[in-house]
Amino acid sequence: MSSNNIDYFFNAKNIAVIGASRNPKKFGHIIFRNLMEKAYPVNPNAQEILGKKCYQSVKDIKGPVNLAVIAVPAPAVADSVRECREKGVKAALIITAGFAEIGHREEEEKIKQAAGDMRLIGPNVIGIYDSYSGIDTVFNLRHRQQRPRPGKIAFLSQSGAFGAAIMDHAAYEHIGLSKFVSLGNMADVNEIDMLEYLAEDKSTNVITMYVEGSKNYRNLYYCLKRVTKSKPVIVVKAGKAKETKKAVASHTASLAGEAGIFSGMLKQSGALEADADEMFNIAKAFSQPLPHGNRVQIVTDGGGFGILAADALINNEMRLSRLSSRTTKEIKKYVPSYASVSNPLDLTGDATTMRYKDVMPFVFSDKEVDAVLVILLMQISSLDTKIVDVIASMKRFKKPLVVCMTGGEYTNIHRRMLEEKDIPTYSSPEGAAKALKALFEYEKIKRRTT
Amino acid sequence: MSSNNIDYFFNAKNIAVIGASRNPKKFGHIIFRNLMEKAYPVNPNAQEILGKKCYQSVKDIKGPVNLAVIAVPAPAVADSVRECREKGVKAALIITAGFAEIGHREEEEKIKQAAGDMRLIGPNVIGIYDSYSGIDTVFNLRHRQQRPRPGKIAFLSQSGAFGAAIMDHAAYEHIGLSKFVSLGNMADVNEIDMLEYLAEDKSTNVITMYVEGSKNYRNLYYCLKRVTKSKPVIVVKAGKAKETKKAVASHTASLAGEAGIFSGMLKQSGALEADADEMFNIAKAFSQPLPHGNRVQIVTDGGGFGILAADALINNEMRLSRLSSRTTKEIKKYVPSYASVSNPLDLTGDATTMRYKDVMPFVFSDKEVDAVLVILLMQISSLDTKIVDVIASMKRFKKPLVVCMTGGEYTNIHRRMLEEKDIPTYSSPEGAAKALKALFEYEKIKRRTT
Repeated sequence: MSSNNIDYFFNAKNIAVIGASRNPKKFGHIIFRNLMEKAYPVNPNAQEILGKKCYQSVKDIKGPVNLAVIAVPAPAVADSVRECREKGVKAALIITAGFAEIGHREEEEKIKQAAGDMRLIGPNVIGIYDSYSGIDTVFNLRHRQQRPRPGKIAFLSQSGAFGAAIMDHAAYEHIGLSKFVSLGNMADVNEIDMLEYLAEDKSTNVITMYVEGSKNYRNLYYCLKRVTKSKPVIVVKAGKAKETKKAVASHTASLAGEAGIFSGMLKQSGALEADADEMFNIAKAFSQPLPHGNRVQIVTDGGGFGILAADALINNEMRLSRLSSRTTKEIKKYVPSYASVSNPLDLTGDATTMRYKDVMPFVFSDKEVDAVLVILLMQISSLDTKIVDVIASMKRFKKPLVVCMTGGEYTNIHRRMLEEKDIPTYSSPEGAAKALKALFEYEKIKRRTT
Repeated sequence: MSSNNIDYFFNAKNIAVIGASRNPKKFGHIIFRNLMEKAYPVNPNAQEILGKKCYQSVKDIKGPVNLAVIAVPAPAVADSVRECREKGVKAALIITAGFAEIGHREEEEKIKQAAGDMRLIGPNVIGIYDSYSGIDTVFNLRHRQQRPRPGKIAFLSQSGAFGAAIMDHAAYEHIGLSKFVSLGNMADVNEIDMLEYLAEDKSTNVITMYVEGSKNYRNLYYCLKRVTKSKPVIVVKAGKAKETKKAVASHTASLAGEAGIFSGMLKQSGALEADADEMFNIAKAFSQPLPHGNRVQIVTDGGGFGILAADALINNEMRLSRLSSRTTKEIKKYVPSYASVSNPLDLTGDATTMRYKDVMPFVFSDKEVDAVLVILLMQISSLDTKIVDVIASMKRFKKPLVVCMTGGEYTNIHRRMLEEKDIPTYSSPEGAAKALKALFEYEKIKRRTT
């Protein structure tokens, strides 16, 4: 099997949807509609679907077919796979469930036999979403599951439902993704293949993954060790407790392994472990340059949030920077006498956009500062929308910057504007601190010689 | 000073806004507009404001004035306070900053002298929001800071900006509040007075507070010990790290105390400590009955999320219940053969609303189950909006229930519908598990004899 052929899953020009349906509630219909322009419908019981000529078999299609998406009932999957191979299809994605995950290992083996050297993703997957090529086999309706904007974060998931929910959440939070892949039972393509593919993928800068278990922990370890040298990998591990390992076996037919050992393996390999709700929050921080140390300066318009952020940084093994006396002196020219020019640097509740603009260059230029955590409480009326450009212009200092903004509608509008400019934002000080910690950790990992 | 008079802050019928302004950008204007119906504007430089006759001094107002909101410049505050006392005002809320928090302790002392037995909140506050009486002295514009719907959670904050941001966030998340109070410098009314007031407040079932420090830790301890016997108190402590105590002193003139000692004191007193982003998530769980044990059953339509929830429960010292064989047998009648009837109970990715409806009564009736964590992934098209009523109808079993829903717009619409029916929802399994843990912890606290 050629590892290069994995690219057909994401960049196929001609796709057959086997099991395409006229019934708008069926997966085969939704997938076909998602892929319309590039797709041939295959279904022996239909003449045409959504105005496109329908084929009895993939073999009846005249031109080349690079990718097949298979959504037929389980007993018909192996035959569909065989026909695909005979047609010369390079890659097949099997949506259908009901194989190894419910004990039907022999049926899954039959699929593998039928595939030959054709690459397979699945069975038991929701498939693939590529925000750049537009390939989208996710069968959830778009009003129920939003699709994320293009970005630099790739996301591998052994669970389809987890993948769908988290992608939906990412879209809502305006987080950009490059590629999403649900791996399911991994009859052929597994997490290791995908990690190696994504390590080379130009549209991906950060890799996130949800893992229940691996069929080859040793290979996963060496793979992570290689991949993390060039790109950060953030892992959510499910089935960590003794009590939850059994559930993993019945979910994706994986072996959960010992959680303690898994965590240790991840750490040694250079991957970063995260909770489910932290995964993308950490990943998006990697839009920033890596820090050269762990001294963080807080700039805030709310005293209480400044203190909470300082607590959170220290709780996450970061340090509070001490502004040089020169920086302090400069900043004092621009702030009222009651502002606290320290760490946190408290610009106070009447801080204007201009006050941030005046002060921040001194903070970023200070050699005592490795990274900056900016707090923007948009509830006060002295901050206006220009703050977005002011914050984004700090990129010129090439130091990591994260923004903490807590609030409702108005705040979230401004969070989205910052996210679009690749400034990572967080709704809590703890979230911002964890993101900076991850940047610092990864900088150390990259510096390691072994 | 009579503790009863605190009620005037929340239920005053006649309010003077001293420093009311015609300039729509000034705090004195926004506060007056918030309170319009009940308020007299006081400002020696205006004839009328927003069509209402303006008074030179509070003493010129003919009828009784129960509450004064003071938003004049710092040097004029003490005189305003004196006039209020002379008028017979019962309570004054001082918005103006620039007192003890910037070292002006003598000026703050003058205010206290001028107040006599009139109750004071502040100075240096954004004030009060009462969702039932409509009293709202928060000077942030409503499009920048939304106001939460009425509910049973009270919120005390030593930081105004923290209070504003978190209230805004609560409104956005559809969390209901009874009362919000920003305490500022606590020249008179402090956290202990407010805890005692809220313990008796009929519209409040749960008390949340943001604390930087106390002027009397001993009294706070005994107060919490009393209050937590009848209502849960959830505390966010800022300035926990050695490095952040100095910042607290310059923020609200409090002494941060030793964080370790503070945490220990909270635990002994029966209060629950939380991170800033967890505070309301934990508080809203108290809409549920308290559990009689820590055995939790997970019901899910996503295998991966079920496993993550199980991990999160165990990580939070809860246990996974084991359904009785009778319950298991009943449930199997209603679910497909490939569904895993265990813990997690995985209704699988094609679970319908009806499947939840059929199965959940057996789960809730099982004596082995103390609490239920339901996962609803709304991305799949077999779940419809009726699920909201199905979930809410489980209240009849009088067992605690929390719902975990991760996603975007469509999911959040359904989260809000559940929140309005007092079913607490969480965007992550970890959040749901922490909420159940808090219920279980508080049940143990209530059972304590000392």
